Amino acid sequence: MIEEKVFKDPVHKYIYVQDRIVWDLINTKEFQRLRRIRQLGTSFLTFHGAEHSRFSHSLGVYEITRKIISQFERNQYADWPAEERLLCLCAALLHDVGHGPFSHSIEKVFGTNHENWSCRIILGDTDVNKVLSQVSPTFPHDVAGVICKTYRREIVTSLVSSQLDADRMDYLLRDAYFTGVNYGTFDLERILRVLRPYQGKIVVKESGMHAVEDYLMSRYQMYWQVYFHPVTRSAEILLGKALECAKALFEEGYSFEFMPEPILHLFQGKLSLSDYFLLDESLMQTVLMYWTLEKNPVLADLSGRFLHRRLFKFTSVDEQEISLLTDFQDALEEAGLDPNYYMEMDFPSDQSYDVYRPGFGKDDKLPILLLDSQDRLSEITERSEIVKSISGLHMGQHRIYYPVELFETGGPKVDVLRRRLFG
Amino acid sequence: MIEEKVFKDPVHKYIYVQDRIVWDLINTKEFQRLRRIRQLGTSFLTFHGAEHSRFSHSLGVYEITRKIISQFERNQYADWPAEERLLCLCAALLHDVGHGPFSHSIEKVFGTNHENWSCRIILGDTDVNKVLSQVSPTFPHDVAGVICKTYRREIVTSLVSSQLDADRMDYLLRDAYFTGVNYGTFDLERILRVLRPYQGKIVVKESGMHAVEDYLMSRYQMYWQVYFHPVTRSAEILLGKALECAKALFEEGYSFEFMPEPILHLFQGKLSLSDYFLLDESLMQTVLMYWTLEKNPVLADLSGRFLHRRLFKFTSVDEQEISLLTDFQDALEEAGLDPNYYMEMDFPSDQSYDVYRPGFGKDDKLPILLLDSQDRLSEITERSEIVKSISGLHMGQHRIYYPVELFETGGPKVDVLRRRLFG
Amino acid sequence: MIEEKVFKDPVHKYIYVQDRIVWDLINTKEFQRLRRIRQLGTSFLTFHGAEHSRFSHSLGVYEITRKIISQFERNQYADWPAEERLLCLCAALLHDVGHGPFSHSIEKVFGTNHENWSCRIILGDTDVNKVLSQVSPTFPHDVAGVICKTYRREIVTSLVSSQLDADRMDYLLRDAYFTGVNYGTFDLERILRVLRPYQGKIVVKESGMHAVEDYLMSRYQMYWQVYFHPVTRSAEILLGKALECAKALFEEGYSFEFMPEPILHLFQGKLSLSDYFLLDESLMQTVLMYWTLEKNPVLADLSGRFLHRRLFKFTSVDEQEISLLTDFQDALEEAGLDPNYYMEMDFPSDQSYDVYRPGFGKDDKLPILLLDSQDRLSEITERSEIVKSISGLHMGQHRIYYPVELFETGGPKVDVLRRRLFG
Amino acid sequence: MIEEKVFKDPVHKYIYVQDRIVWDLINTKEFQRLRRIRQLGTSFLTFHGAEHSRFSHSLGVYEITRKIISQFERNQYADWPAEERLLCLCAALLHDVGHGPFSHSIEKVFGTNHENWSCRIILGDTDVNKVLSQVSPTFPHDVAGVICKTYRREIVTSLVSSQLDADRMDYLLRDAYFTGVNYGTFDLERILRVLRPYQGKIVVKESGMHAVEDYLMSRYQMYWQVYFHPVTRSAEILLGKALECAKALFEEGYSFEFMPEPILHLFQGKLSLSDYFLLDESLMQTVLMYWTLEKNPVLADLSGRFLHRRLFKFTSVDEQEISLLTDFQDALEEAGLDPNYYMEMDFPSDQSYDVYRPGFGKDDKLPILLLDSQDRLSEITERSEIVKSISGLHMGQHRIYYPVELFETGGPKVDVLRRRLFG
Repeated sequence: MIEEKVFKDPVHKYIYVQDRIVWDLINTKEFQRLRRIRQLGTSFLTFHGAEHSRFSHSLGVYEITRKIISQFERNQYADWPAEERLLCLCAALLHDVGHGPFSHSIEKVFGTNHENWSCRIILGDTDVNKVLSQVSPTFPHDVAGVICKTYRREIVTSLVSSQLDADRMDYLLRDAYFTGVNYGTFDLERILRVLRPYQGKIVVKESGMHAVEDYLMSRYQMYWQVYFHPVTRSAEILLGKALECAKALFEEGYSFEFMPEPILHLFQGKLSLSDYFLLDESLMQTVLMYWTLEKNPVLADLSGRFLHRRLFKFTSVDEQEISLLTDFQDALEEAGLDPNYYMEMDFPSDQSYDVYRPGFGKDDKLPILLLDSQDRLSEITERSEIVKSISGLHMGQHRIYYPVELFETGGPKVDVLRRRLFG
Repeated sequence: MIEEKVFKDPVHKYIYVQDRIVWDLINTKEFQRLRRIRQLGTSFLTFHGAEHSRFSHSLGVYEITRKIISQFERNQYADWPAEERLLCLCAALLHDVGHGPFSHSIEKVFGTNHENWSCRIILGDTDVNKVLSQVSPTFPHDVAGVICKTYRREIVTSLVSSQLDADRMDYLLRDAYFTGVNYGTFDLERILRVLRPYQGKIVVKESGMHAVEDYLMSRYQMYWQVYFHPVTRSAEILLGKALECAKALFEEGYSFEFMPEPILHLFQGKLSLSDYFLLDESLMQTVLMYWTLEKNPVLADLSGRFLHRRLFKFTSVDEQEISLLTDFQDALEEAGLDPNYYMEMDFPSDQSYDVYRPGFGKDDKLPILLLDSQDRLSEITERSEIVKSISGLHMGQHRIYYPVELFETGGPKVDVLRRRLFG
Repeated sequence: MIEEKVFKDPVHKYIYVQDRIVWDLINTKEFQRLRRIRQLGTSFLTFHGAEHSRFSHSLGVYEITRKIISQFERNQYADWPAEERLLCLCAALLHDVGHGPFSHSIEKVFGTNHENWSCRIILGDTDVNKVLSQVSPTFPHDVAGVICKTYRREIVTSLVSSQLDADRMDYLLRDAYFTGVNYGTFDLERILRVLRPYQGKIVVKESGMHAVEDYLMSRYQMYWQVYFHPVTRSAEILLGKALECAKALFEEGYSFEFMPEPILHLFQGKLSLSDYFLLDESLMQTVLMYWTLEKNPVLADLSGRFLHRRLFKFTSVDEQEISLLTDFQDALEEAGLDPNYYMEMDFPSDQSYDVYRPGFGKDDKLPILLLDSQDRLSEITERSEIVKSISGLHMGQHRIYYPVELFETGGPKVDVLRRRLFG
Repeated sequence: MIEEKVFKDPVHKYIYVQDRIVWDLINTKEFQRLRRIRQLGTSFLTFHGAEHSRFSHSLGVYEITRKIISQFERNQYADWPAEERLLCLCAALLHDVGHGPFSHSIEKVFGTNHENWSCRIILGDTDVNKVLSQVSPTFPHDVAGVICKTYRREIVTSLVSSQLDADRMDYLLRDAYFTGVNYGTFDLERILRVLRPYQGKIVVKESGMHAVEDYLMSRYQMYWQVYFHPVTRSAEILLGKALECAKALFEEGYSFEFMPEPILHLFQGKLSLSDYFLLDESLMQTVLMYWTLEKNPVLADLSGRFLHRRLFKFTSVDEQEISLLTDFQDALEEAGLDPNYYMEMDFPSDQSYDVYRPGFGKDDKLPILLLDSQDRLSEITERSEIVKSISGLHMGQHRIYYPVELFETGGPKVDVLRRRLFG
């Protein structure tokens, strides 16, 4: 134990560190690296306040976890395994330590996976591993187990990852704060007060149902207002295209003016831990800046578009209009723009961003369970009309993204498309 | 004119753009570059929320200026020169466009000056210049004049730069928001409502005196709690030392593994506009990362300390203890650490960060004038007891910064110092 | 026109008065009386912050209306009848001027109606009428027409009363602020920006759909968390019972120790305007305080329970358990408590508190219409999956309210009930 | 001990009750009566949001005290007398229980004293006394001792009453919240964290000095912006005049239409505990309402002015202009207005509202002491330049209050005065 340390935090006011291990983890260079990775990737191009880092989010997840456990301890709940405290705190702090720069785009193009990297960092030859090993030789393995959801005790993993976990609670509040939208606010203090450890699970006292409804509705709003914002998607698509283009050039044997080792090894599919440590958003932005000076015009153009925010526009399409895709391809080719790099069809949704889905399957997030005064559990959609109404709601439209300059050129196929789109 | 555009902003809720020129300026690559320069330099190492960019601050200064002018127009004040509206808006937006990465440290080591660079960008061969020139051939010159305070009409320059200008009002609120401290909040709406154009100056209706007092007290608190925070100073000192070390090595003919052109030209004192455009905080962080791998141990160590946040500690010294400096030097030399790079005496103050100083001199910021109901002007310290009390207050202590590892070594001189410091 | 006046307001920061008529209306004694009527009736017994008055709410509705109209004027929308500005402002300000003390309970017991009283005050021999008549002899009649929804122009009435009117927008934000819950917050500035006058209606630009969803979800949460809170209902029931008991005693010829004229006339069903002016919550609380000293034990007990907050408890009942009612009656009678005054079955819902219902009928609130970029209108449930999901949702449970002391007595029927309820 | 109960509170989010005694105290009718006494007396006539009650403030003081003690216990500070916990909590909760309606005005006119009444309620035959006596027969006496500052342990009294006590911390935050001004906000969480029990006193860890500065500056601003607001003073003066007039009439044997017993006894100087219980702001407002119908024109006029907010205007006077007083008297007499009731000279200040004064005298509030890392204590003005600057600052102007209608009459003396005032 150490003298309590505090971090000033805009979301939780203060973050309290009470364990030497936690303090030492924060001061490792692998954890400090998270300062150079934005929490919301390309969203800063839509919401200019959203420059906050994964470092701040990781501290926030730690703090919420600490508060939950502290409440469990204060009330001496029998079902809480007190000996798991430090494991929970470390896993909460480190759950995102393997995130790379602009994860969405990079992972899609290069097939990396941040959860795997978190475990490699925790188990590999790193400062993080050294600190964790001070607790016990098997402690790093336990922490990695919690993050990869293989740890034997579900109550521990569900604190860090479930439909109502510390991770989501922090990012909804944090992203709402830094973007400036007020959709993502809910009553965190109340939710923390109604959580209960019960038979190996974290459940919610029934009287807190409305607070959970409020949380789920905030989540719904944040997905559609922030996470799936079409401008953010446009930036992600553009970044993905630039990376695909560079990768294709690399595979063709193109000679780059500037090729730092971590990028080279990323292209070669043989990233080492020390490469990964160097691979932050500063490096990615520097590389993109150099690519704007490359002689390949497509790579230079796509990189410049991303950096200087000349993003693709989009048009929403109904399902019956899928034929528009062909018209777009024709028009782009006529205008001398490669459809592989200057167009994308997008459907902004994925299961993890459901409003809420009460699945109990192996790959599902644990659902939200209510505990009534007679100690009966029920899944929240059985009790809440509104959660039932919105559960599984999928929305979002298909959109085609393309450069607005397309319509500055002439040509019959562009004219056909222009008429279809704008009448 | 264009259809009104809005940016979501956490501080002002929304930022409204109503002029095509303003919209086009925001979309230039020189203005977009400000996304890659943090508003608060190294403060993110003290306050992890403080990752916000000069881009967001510049939009904020523009928005406050827009609101002030809009109030003047709505009330049809005779002393407001309506024809200066667009000039004010453009100067407000662009006043920081010349800021480089970590300006404090870079300007100190290399003698650059962000105000000069703002004018070079406005007057040079840039997208910004092209957009401004659409208004009139002399318009870029006028904008630069406002920023460098040579423009003929004081009322215009004082909107952008005075003791109560749009710049300070935005940064106090914005820095308070992103650091999470609540010192910097004051009643912006009320202040805007009591500003009046009067005889070529911006003055304050006397009934708003208390709101101005509150603003000055917020400013005082922000200086001591945020801007002069010793940990932030420590990070600035460390960064400065790393840059000095690299510069010295360069001058000795040391061969760097990684030396991008903008850095080379910075070292050579011949930065071009196109170099400057590339010189952002991503590049600086990438360079520092590469320097951690350099063979020169001092440069590698200092760079790593900054990046991984192993900052210098500090001890406060009274004036009579100046002899401590010599003891520090001796101890550092004994421990094999070059005092030029591993120690600094700091006095955290400079005139621009006074609480408030009612100067009327040529180099002073314009003081705050109150306008009473009989149209008499008085400088605020004549009317406000509290502003008089705190006016010109200087505080802050001398501090010596040094690496904490110094005391992990033994040796007689280190022991002497240890005893002086810790008894 | 007058020099702009401002009121400091916690919800809107400032409330701006720019017309002499509005200023004079605020200063009438009938409008000042609203300071002595709480906005949320008995809710202060649940949420101790909820002491805010109808005076503050009325100013808030005025301010939102002023902002909407100001936006319409600034953008010079063709469909906005500019000549209706002052009528809208006055109707917004005065829409609640006829509210009496604890309206819900009083109106239920005595059959009064605040909307009628608003019109009587506007059309009768009052200061409000004198001020309004300065505009034109028919102006009071127009204002009353807007409030009673008989005014010929729907666009005017719908500003003050519809599914998305200034009234609801203010009370959601205001009640959320003063109770301290954070359910009721939504992005007012954004909603105001997307409202459009269109073909005699106020509609919403389609791009604002998500902001409206957020507003409707806030509304839903406020209804269940605040407006239908069972403790608030308990206080309302208790107050209603005390009033019913006093009324019954009065009808029996009981002689009251303290019977001020307005109460006497209320009992006699012949309230005059000057009585009504005296009938505020101070008087009601004073009367209740005197009733605690009355010799009739039921009246004294019920009044004391309300004043000293010894409220009825409640138990939720399913529909199949309606037989509980009989058991309650039996037990109460056994315990010597009159079931007419010591028990109530409650179902907390009424149509006006729907989440949202897209009715177009004569008695329905005007639904929310979206205007797309091709000037087509659609009702919001056609476009928003989530509004469709929650539209018309009715929830809430039947509850039986009763004094907790019932179970402190013995007796076989109380025992039967105790077993049914608590097993 | 009981299951934890919570109150939703806008200032502290939640108020936690963990002791049965505290819960029972809150439910006494004497404590519930505080719901009918406003925290800020007549300020609601200036700031319409300021309707919050002493009930909510008392809960807030309790909650801050609970948090301070909880921090002391968590850190197991040796100097904290753990056995005093319940005494501190009860004294914090009850410190204002003796406040009457519009205390400032009533106490001035009738010489009552709320602190004495608090002790009478605690020691007399009341529900509060019954609850406290459950702890021990001497417990009520101890609680009264803490409130009247005669309790033997200074550390206990200073928690409830000092320059940095739970009382002031709550009212600054609460009054700021409900008025809507943002002057009164400071970092409560940080201050609570740096308080330490030390040698029988509550002191502040030196590192928290800036947070205390911020608190003192907030306090300064609140005094001048809210507590001494000239419009609030005007309402207090008017209410005082109405009470003086009624008292004088009573002493002359005037027969009142409506004279409830508590008021009669107040006039006769023989208020009993049961009278006092009935004496709330509802009763006072009802009495004032009836007085507007009295045949004495001065009493009727003054009462109506207060209730319907037709307040006195004011003019600020320098010390050399004291002769204005005579001119005012002459003019009022000429206009047929009794100067005793239609005029008042006011100097808005009293010692308890100093910015800060480091007195150690018997009647002074305990000063703020800083504890440095070598366990040395210093009074804050020795360490803080800014507190030193503002310490003891007195400001405020002499003002003469009078009815604006005075100048609607003619006459030579009124003309003289008009010229002096308005030129």
